[in-house]
Amino acid sequence: MSTHTTANPTLVHALRGGIVESEHRGALAVVDADGSVHTQWGDIRRPIFPRSAIKVLQALPLVASGAAERWQLSDEELALACASHGGEPRHAQTAAAMLARAGVDAAALDCGAHWPYHDGAIKAMAAAGQAPTALHNNCSGKHAGFVCLGCWMSESAAEGQDRRAFLRGYIRPDHPVMREVTASLQATTGYDLARTAMGTDGCSIPTYAVPLQHLAHAFARVGTGVGLKPEHQRAATRLRAAVAAAPYMVAGSGRFDSRVMERLGARVFCKVGAEGVYCAALPELGLGVAIKMDDGNNARACEVVMAAVIAKLLPLDDADAAFMHAFSDVTLKNWNGIEVGQLRAAGALRAC
Amino acid sequence: MSTHTTANPTLVHALRGGIVESEHRGALAVVDADGSVHTQWGDIRRPIFPRSAIKVLQALPLVASGAAERWQLSDEELALACASHGGEPRHAQTAAAMLARAGVDAAALDCGAHWPYHDGAIKAMAAAGQAPTALHNNCSGKHAGFVCLGCWMSESAAEGQDRRAFLRGYIRPDHPVMREVTASLQATTGYDLARTAMGTDGCSIPTYAVPLQHLAHAFARVGTGVGLKPEHQRAATRLRAAVAAAPYMVAGSGRFDSRVMERLGARVFCKVGAEGVYCAALPELGLGVAIKMDDGNNARACEVVMAAVIAKLLPLDDADAAFMHAFSDVTLKNWNGIEVGQLRAAGALRAC
Repeated sequence: MSTHTTANPTLVHALRGGIVESEHRGALAVVDADGSVHTQWGDIRRPIFPRSAIKVLQALPLVASGAAERWQLSDEELALACASHGGEPRHAQTAAAMLARAGVDAAALDCGAHWPYHDGAIKAMAAAGQAPTALHNNCSGKHAGFVCLGCWMSESAAEGQDRRAFLRGYIRPDHPVMREVTASLQATTGYDLARTAMGTDGCSIPTYAVPLQHLAHAFARVGTGVGLKPEHQRAATRLRAAVAAAPYMVAGSGRFDSRVMERLGARVFCKVGAEGVYCAALPELGLGVAIKMDDGNNARACEVVMAAVIAKLLPLDDADAAFMHAFSDVTLKNWNGIEVGQLRAAGALRAC
Repeated sequence: MSTHTTANPTLVHALRGGIVESEHRGALAVVDADGSVHTQWGDIRRPIFPRSAIKVLQALPLVASGAAERWQLSDEELALACASHGGEPRHAQTAAAMLARAGVDAAALDCGAHWPYHDGAIKAMAAAGQAPTALHNNCSGKHAGFVCLGCWMSESAAEGQDRRAFLRGYIRPDHPVMREVTASLQATTGYDLARTAMGTDGCSIPTYAVPLQHLAHAFARVGTGVGLKPEHQRAATRLRAAVAAAPYMVAGSGRFDSRVMERLGARVFCKVGAEGVYCAALPELGLGVAIKMDDGNNARACEVVMAAVIAKLLPLDDADAAFMHAFSDVTLKNWNGIEVGQLRAAGALRAC
């Protein structure tokens, strides 16, 4: 069992009563499309599992193949293919619509079912006596994208193939659909996936360990097109435009990714992943960002860091700067609404 | 803003695909009733906010004063006074019963309302169209204990005092109730609370920063009575017996504290606190334990460490050892029930 020999730096402090109550360590890479490192905090060469932060890289084949065009997927549907959504009604309905376009239904999804992330959706479903389905899984849009790709592949096969038979086991590393998805990750990160650790993700597809430096490089490529093959260039442009047009689909009500992209539009493409991972493209700067918090904390660590990085790197007007500042300097209140502390990006990070 | 100069050691690893995906750092003190340090990992001299881990210390005046006897509080009610409960129906009902014994109701509680921690309780309430009250607050039992103490104090005052007027603002540091509570914390920890950082807890009472070494010492005292004044000795014995008799009340269905004490009875008194704090008494060994995870993670970090410490220190038969092992070596499964990783107490901790 390997572990760090040197601790990564503290990137977020949780304050209470004027002292540091808790802290979050992690690493951060900012890289340009040529692969040059712009900013580095902590160990950016250790391979980490990017989890859901790279859904846009996994969605490139859906567009690059021609499948998205064949099934006439909308902006909302393409955004959902890149999403970790909250399982709100529109998310579940949109996943179902994607599947219907390709002539299948929720039975084709192998992601498993779980209760929505969105608190209001949980209570509404409980009140209505409903149980969650695979459509409520935060990854249902990504999986619907895989299924759409698979349906297109089966149709394109020389003699045509039975859709259901072809789709079976699409989550396996050696299935033609997943091989396309892995090839996209390989091409965009430039990292040798055949020789790195492979784990199983929450939704059962493989996750490959990739260093932050390579992940940030991949997002710089996605943001600029530089270093991508032409069909991936076009696909990246299409997916970024879809997310900018329908940011609600990529996360949901009140969630960081949706709120930031609703505000800043195509200037930012950001995506959270489980276990404290965040990736982003800042197209106008030609930069990609990748973050991993050592402790795997998402909401209160990773988001604070990403907000600080965006605010530091992007030229923002006062209103947009204040909007981002509210995410990197968070006031913590208790059950009575009394201010009890703050979450703050570490001082050093603000000056990166 | 202060921060650590040296990183605390990694106490828990989260594994996936054969590598460390995330890790949790922290500090751990095991101290005997004389104050001698038995085991030390990381910085145990830095003051930390103990939050809800010290509810038993805060409940000592309820019993020591005679209030618990005056209101004839049951084992279940005294256990709830030491609890961070899940807001299940029996928890809320028991808090209401405590208040009724002292002649007041939920309007006397200043802890604020929040939805239950227990998932099933949330869904049942949502299905029934109910909204949470202060009785569902995880601290409602502790606050009901404060109110019971306050009612006794107002009754015992020379001329008697109006209960409601006396109770008003009982959560303030300078209120007679809270001064009793703070004096108990001061006496058991032996730490100068007048000169340490004070914050506001989630339920609005003050929380004082105390080093892990002192917290572990206090729990060794609570477990043995050594070094406590006679009325605190009797109160500690009474509260430990109440929790051992009604462990469901101290947390709830499926929760670590309840499950461990249901299994091991009076051999362990353990209590979680927010932001990755855990305290425990192991009476037969004369030891107290205090843990703080740097990142504030409770469920998957603090519990793993506490389970490893209990299993290491207490002589357990094979069945009890296997029971505890399931908490310190946790199999992680995904939405499809596929094993994707493990949580494991760090190797060094196992050999502590």
